[in-house]
Amino acid sequence: MQTLKERILKEGKVLGPGILKVDSFLNHQIDPAFTLQMGKELARRFAGAGVTRVLTVEASGIAVAMATALALGVPVVFAKKKKASTQQQDVYRAQVYSFTRQEAVEICVTVDYLSPQDTVLIVDDFLAHGEALTGLVNIVRQSGARLAGAGVVIEKCFQRGAEKLRQEGVRVEALAAIASMEPGRIIFA
Amino acid sequence: MQTLKERILKEGKVLGPGILKVDSFLNHQIDPAFTLQMGKELARRFAGAGVTRVLTVEASGIAVAMATALALGVPVVFAKKKKASTQQQDVYRAQVYSFTRQEAVEICVTVDYLSPQDTVLIVDDFLAHGEALTGLVNIVRQSGARLAGAGVVIEKCFQRGAEKLRQEGVRVEALAAIASMEPGRIIFA
Repeated sequence: MQTLKERILKEGKVLGPGILKVDSFLNHQIDPAFTLQMGKELARRFAGAGVTRVLTVEASGIAVAMATALALGVPVVFAKKKKASTQQQDVYRAQVYSFTRQEAVEICVTVDYLSPQDTVLIVDDFLAHGEALTGLVNIVRQSGARLAGAGVVIEKCFQRGAEKLRQEGVRVEALAAIASMEPGRIIFA
Repeated sequence: MQTLKERILKEGKVLGPGILKVDSFLNHQIDPAFTLQMGKELARRFAGAGVTRVLTVEASGIAVAMATALALGVPVVFAKKKKASTQQQDVYRAQVYSFTRQEAVEICVTVDYLSPQDTVLIVDDFLAHGEALTGLVNIVRQSGARLAGAGVVIEKCFQRGAEKLRQEGVRVEALAAIASMEPGRIIFA
């Protein structure tokens, strides 16, 4: 998506190895009209897949997931992050390690909101090592729903998460895929 | 907002004292088209206020904040929750106690995204004891921005958060205000 690549080049900041900050429109401040455009593009790519629910994880995936779900005319479900000690019943759960926060969290979805009748599109802002998306795929499999694939705003190819998911047969679509980056220099795939 | 009250009556579950679960369209699953309607209504109520930014806190406020900001044609900023030990520079921060989680967290907004030139509308899903909103008001005041007010989806009047904010001069608008509730019985104000 050309307009996204331009914004990443203009507004993105590479902070140390592997960390791209796009706080001005995606992760901290959100540009709502631009987010709708990104959601429309993700919806277009999965238009024929029969998606019945969009699944994301709190927090920064929610806006683009909502925009995608709006374009597809389906609900969004966002997995909640909890401390790993939760004993709540009736939830699908997965462990996710966050490289940014350097800790493991548990993500949960109440069983009411995913069923074997669903076809699920996973949406998130970033795909780096693939920890969050792998956890969401795990939750979709627990539910018995069909997985249409995963749509992300930015894929950092060099962190190999997308490659791992594709090897497991998951269709992955990224609006912008970054092959390499260093301060002042971002190369798209 | 009549359609919202109907959904609360139909889908809401009162779980013990003071806890209303509306997971099916607001807190865990999101109905995107309905969320856009709620955002439009909040935007309408603050139409003349010169709002330049919508401020919320992750995670369940993000969808309705985005819908409100879309209708107003302005960006959303969402405060991030961190453990209270964060030493990051260049952020406005406030301590917030969560009655649901029974712990204090720090919420932060990078200084880049709120300035004395802004007029801020705070948006959130719930207004109960007012802890989160009071933290957000505190952050707006630190930034020197003007506060247009706070718009929430559901106010639980009996938990007095809105009353406290109004006494401090904050304009508060709720799409549905609940005077009292017990399992099977929700009374609007």
